Amino acid sequence: MNRFGKAFSFTTFGESHGPAVGCVIDGIPAGLCIDEAFIQSELDRRRPGQNKFATARKEGDKVEILSGVFEGLSTGSPIALVIFNENQKSGDYENVKDLFRPGHADFTYFHKYGIRDYRGGGRSSARETAARVAAGAVAKLLLKALHVEVKSGVCAIGTIEAIQYDFSRVAQSPIYALDASVEKAQEDAIMEAKNTHDSIGGVALVHIVGAPAGLGEPLYYKLDALLAEAMMGINGVKAIEIGEGFHASSLKGSTNNDAITKEGFVSNHSGGILGGISNGDTITCKVYFKPTPSIFIAQQTITKEGEEVECSLKGRHDPCIAVRGSVVAESMAALVVADLLLLNMGSRLEHLQKVYM
Amino acid sequence: MNRFGKAFSFTTFGESHGPAVGCVIDGIPAGLCIDEAFIQSELDRRRPGQNKFATARKEGDKVEILSGVFEGLSTGSPIALVIFNENQKSGDYENVKDLFRPGHADFTYFHKYGIRDYRGGGRSSARETAARVAAGAVAKLLLKALHVEVKSGVCAIGTIEAIQYDFSRVAQSPIYALDASVEKAQEDAIMEAKNTHDSIGGVALVHIVGAPAGLGEPLYYKLDALLAEAMMGINGVKAIEIGEGFHASSLKGSTNNDAITKEGFVSNHSGGILGGISNGDTITCKVYFKPTPSIFIAQQTITKEGEEVECSLKGRHDPCIAVRGSVVAESMAALVVADLLLLNMGSRLEHLQKVYM
Amino acid sequence: MNRFGKAFSFTTFGESHGPAVGCVIDGIPAGLCIDEAFIQSELDRRRPGQNKFATARKEGDKVEILSGVFEGLSTGSPIALVIFNENQKSGDYENVKDLFRPGHADFTYFHKYGIRDYRGGGRSSARETAARVAAGAVAKLLLKALHVEVKSGVCAIGTIEAIQYDFSRVAQSPIYALDASVEKAQEDAIMEAKNTHDSIGGVALVHIVGAPAGLGEPLYYKLDALLAEAMMGINGVKAIEIGEGFHASSLKGSTNNDAITKEGFVSNHSGGILGGISNGDTITCKVYFKPTPSIFIAQQTITKEGEEVECSLKGRHDPCIAVRGSVVAESMAALVVADLLLLNMGSRLEHLQKVYM
Amino acid sequence: MNRFGKAFSFTTFGESHGPAVGCVIDGIPAGLCIDEAFIQSELDRRRPGQNKFATARKEGDKVEILSGVFEGLSTGSPIALVIFNENQKSGDYENVKDLFRPGHADFTYFHKYGIRDYRGGGRSSARETAARVAAGAVAKLLLKALHVEVKSGVCAIGTIEAIQYDFSRVAQSPIYALDASVEKAQEDAIMEAKNTHDSIGGVALVHIVGAPAGLGEPLYYKLDALLAEAMMGINGVKAIEIGEGFHASSLKGSTNNDAITKEGFVSNHSGGILGGISNGDTITCKVYFKPTPSIFIAQQTITKEGEEVECSLKGRHDPCIAVRGSVVAESMAALVVADLLLLNMGSRLEHLQKVYM
Repeated sequence: MNRFGKAFSFTTFGESHGPAVGCVIDGIPAGLCIDEAFIQSELDRRRPGQNKFATARKEGDKVEILSGVFEGLSTGSPIALVIFNENQKSGDYENVKDLFRPGHADFTYFHKYGIRDYRGGGRSSARETAARVAAGAVAKLLLKALHVEVKSGVCAIGTIEAIQYDFSRVAQSPIYALDASVEKAQEDAIMEAKNTHDSIGGVALVHIVGAPAGLGEPLYYKLDALLAEAMMGINGVKAIEIGEGFHASSLKGSTNNDAITKEGFVSNHSGGILGGISNGDTITCKVYFKPTPSIFIAQQTITKEGEEVECSLKGRHDPCIAVRGSVVAESMAALVVADLLLLNMGSRLEHLQKVYM
Repeated sequence: MNRFGKAFSFTTFGESHGPAVGCVIDGIPAGLCIDEAFIQSELDRRRPGQNKFATARKEGDKVEILSGVFEGLSTGSPIALVIFNENQKSGDYENVKDLFRPGHADFTYFHKYGIRDYRGGGRSSARETAARVAAGAVAKLLLKALHVEVKSGVCAIGTIEAIQYDFSRVAQSPIYALDASVEKAQEDAIMEAKNTHDSIGGVALVHIVGAPAGLGEPLYYKLDALLAEAMMGINGVKAIEIGEGFHASSLKGSTNNDAITKEGFVSNHSGGILGGISNGDTITCKVYFKPTPSIFIAQQTITKEGEEVECSLKGRHDPCIAVRGSVVAESMAALVVADLLLLNMGSRLEHLQKVYM
Repeated sequence: MNRFGKAFSFTTFGESHGPAVGCVIDGIPAGLCIDEAFIQSELDRRRPGQNKFATARKEGDKVEILSGVFEGLSTGSPIALVIFNENQKSGDYENVKDLFRPGHADFTYFHKYGIRDYRGGGRSSARETAARVAAGAVAKLLLKALHVEVKSGVCAIGTIEAIQYDFSRVAQSPIYALDASVEKAQEDAIMEAKNTHDSIGGVALVHIVGAPAGLGEPLYYKLDALLAEAMMGINGVKAIEIGEGFHASSLKGSTNNDAITKEGFVSNHSGGILGGISNGDTITCKVYFKPTPSIFIAQQTITKEGEEVECSLKGRHDPCIAVRGSVVAESMAALVVADLLLLNMGSRLEHLQKVYM
Repeated sequence: MNRFGKAFSFTTFGESHGPAVGCVIDGIPAGLCIDEAFIQSELDRRRPGQNKFATARKEGDKVEILSGVFEGLSTGSPIALVIFNENQKSGDYENVKDLFRPGHADFTYFHKYGIRDYRGGGRSSARETAARVAAGAVAKLLLKALHVEVKSGVCAIGTIEAIQYDFSRVAQSPIYALDASVEKAQEDAIMEAKNTHDSIGGVALVHIVGAPAGLGEPLYYKLDALLAEAMMGINGVKAIEIGEGFHASSLKGSTNNDAITKEGFVSNHSGGILGGISNGDTITCKVYFKPTPSIFIAQQTITKEGEEVECSLKGRHDPCIAVRGSVVAESMAALVVADLLLLNMGSRLEHLQKVYM
């Protein structure tokens, strides 16, 4: 099950230390300008090795388009994108090949499949998220053509939370921070974790602006349910909330309901979604990342044979996956919206009449 | 899109004030004993009108099996379950037929479809969750045959949170409370909301016990992603977390990682899921419900024509949807696990050899 | 797997001698006028017991709409249709409960599921096609609103083949014959088979007129592939051809290619489909039905325990399933086209811009 | 919609004259030995340029595995296979870029998408079938591990039909002929078509041997329906039949039914399928290919602007697509069976108990 989406869908492949990772994107409407430089620029935002807050592992992440584009335009055929792996150091993983790293998928892949590619986590590596970002970039091209925008940033690192959200500054921040007033403290929290051979969790915020009312297919492909699936499926995510989110559970209805006036919704506790369908307001969700499981402090674990051993990791790892994870969350949000835009085309007879008659 | 699941799937139909709600369950292995009384007893747990903490609306919720069962056993053919609606008071909704109730799906259904069944929310009504619970009951029969158990309860009402979780007492509690020490305070919170014509949010906890390691289809049908989709798709849910959840984002990796010994995992911050696959430990998730949007306090809204009006609701509503919602969350969890148990059958060549050779 | 279609889809349920058969249709655009009398009239065309050429078994086939319609219009929610079974004579099947009727699915259901509902074939009964026709009727309502028409008739009974096709006379013919000049001979062939306790095969022709060019989703949801799947899935169908069909394999390219002029295609060997996509011409397919497997001549078979016995059938059966089968083929064609009309909505960026901007 | 299959599925990408064609295969059970040389040998069977009966166009068709294999075994992760295109002569297509070649998909792709990649047919080129054969090779590895075999050969070229079928000689025949007694006449028919700048149709036969009873998911993923979809979706196929097929429509039930004895079925008119489910006998289907639409005789057509012009083709084309098409049909059959083997794993509770308890 390596596919996401129904109408606008993508299938990914590839392992951390195999020849390549990539994706096949299906359902792209014909006639869309496919800007290869933009796709590359999105991958660059996710790419590691850019500063001290991320892993020193350098991945070129050079994307190649193998199909589906003719004279710069999408043809309606699937677009395959491939990123050949470079700079792999499989040797780093020789010492963990027979044991299960705590907090990682080693244990579960082995128990599910009876075999696992131990090199860098194999298929379970966050390396695969490069393919998500590549697919997300194509989704963003479609969204742009329909005047929908997806934005993301980091709102919390450990316990240091943003007070205000300024998406316009994210691109300038090495940790994609939304709030200048806490950025330094957030950076310090990451460096403190890194310097103590530990890691730290964080939270990404995603906003979708300009989406028309009506997106989301009730009752089992709702916009919020699909966002939840999309976000929870990202490596390291343990919680997701829409709008007022988990705080809503402690409120009264009179506080949480958004009153409606001629000008629109007075507040946005709903996060732009009612009954699983977009209401035209900004769609908001927060994505909670656990701390990177790869830490250099010794940990207790067992081998495949069940013997207890100490796990001592080597290699290069992000001290905080929420930072680069925010770009992945943004990409997944774009993919969700692209899918729902296509699905919603059939929601009314008058839409069909507009196209066919 | 009214279907959930891939291998073990169900499709629901029906509106609050139409002739019936129901579901067609597909993918049930043949040879399973279909205990009709058990299905009915599960529906009874969700049924309103049982005490002062829920809506006074009485729904008989008598389930009928239309297909797929022969001499008490599943035949491998789809099981259709139908619950004919009774005790409908469409008249209660005459006064809201032209306006959008705040916090409800009225606005979005109208903007998506250009038409809406205003009687009791129509398709968006929580009435539909009866079909989920009916399908979930069949899933639980399958799980029971494989020694997997799903449990639920209420852990918070408003700001009153359970300190400890005791699933064995839930059936005795009128609000399905997990913690006797706070139950009275939780009941008071609900009654206070009800008496002030308001409503209140709450949180449900779901545990899945006995699931084998290996459930979850990476990378886009992971166990946690699927639980997130399932839970977020329930009426009124605004957030979901797995294991340590939201809190994990504020932790260090050295705290959050679960060490492994010969006896198993030392802790369960992961909520029984690593890399989207079950690890054999108890699977845990929390589901956050917003306060019931239907309140009797006057609210500001607009009509279909965009005119500003005051919204004054009548009818009978739960002051806290988290209570009966916990049963729905439990049902959805069972449906997720049933689906993944079937999908995992093809994960290893040796499984196929066991069955075919 | 009891669902057909992706965007416009339906799920069926029910057995020959269970409480009911029915379907849940999903993906119907909102705003479509749902003409219940038309749905019933389509069912009446398929209904047995109407003349001596069909089984004497009388099925009322009264359809009930359980959901998805409000004030006569589709709401975008699933429409559930149910037909309660009447006139069941389970007793007719007591003598076959332990043996496998030749040509029937008894053997395979038992080997697949380890259990079978022997009453009238259970799930494998052609009784289920009532649900297909009901769903097809709703599809035809959508097609009509877009000026697409689906027609069917019988072109061959046994070796008696129609020379010319006149769809306008089909409704008047008790065997839905397309050609008046051979109708009598075809009727005689059926009666001869019936009177000798045997059965006979036949061929249905389906035409789809007015479908726009562009329907079909290459490369794995092509129009012709989908028609093939739809038709081959009907009880008793053993072959399907599009346009020139199996005859095309004996031709030269210079004969088979359809030349193109300003006025359109000069011939229609392609059957209106090129590369799996409709070309705007009439879409044509022929569907080949085997003779009814239920015959009253004694046959050799075995019991569940493997003991050889003589199979002597009772009950009431169509001597030629192609006649009523033609209505089912027409319904399936309508369902295929409805699905592809919806899917094609996303084929071009300009379609999305027309709807959203 | 570029994916086929549900449990064992594959997604293809690529155009005739783009950088590459390929596929991503999903759902492969872990622990399967992935024999790369075998995959290559399957591609070699489909590869053009091998003798005078096929196009002189040489395609290296060198397959590369990008993912999903570790130490020679499948890991349960998707296997991506890519074949980079070589020997492209786009120049051959300059003269057809503005017109619609008769019998080709040029017309329909243009009308569906508003844009088309005219080089060699782009996505609609039979070049894509290399990806099907690559995926089919992996399916055949799975089938072999479960003792199921798929075989194919050519049974008719134009009007020259095989009298008897000998699969063991197919590999030695340059036209994959099943019958030595007509092979020379079939070769002559191809050469005659080629020498007169024309083309000719043909028929492929596929047998599946050793499949267990029980494959096929009623009622909408039946084995025969799925084979029909798979075969009709191959370039140039216009008809498909199972077992007695077309001929069955002219028979009596007493002739067509297969009697059953302790030793099994006395005859195999059913083609190994009853009620859409395999019965353990050999599964047989015939696939009818139209003559290659690319011929060198001048043809009448129109340009994109609707102007009438003469179409004069250049390039290198197979005079009979049925020959190499038989390999594609065999591959698709393998993919169908692999998918159904996985899906059937959940058909009985006892299968689940075997794996989980």
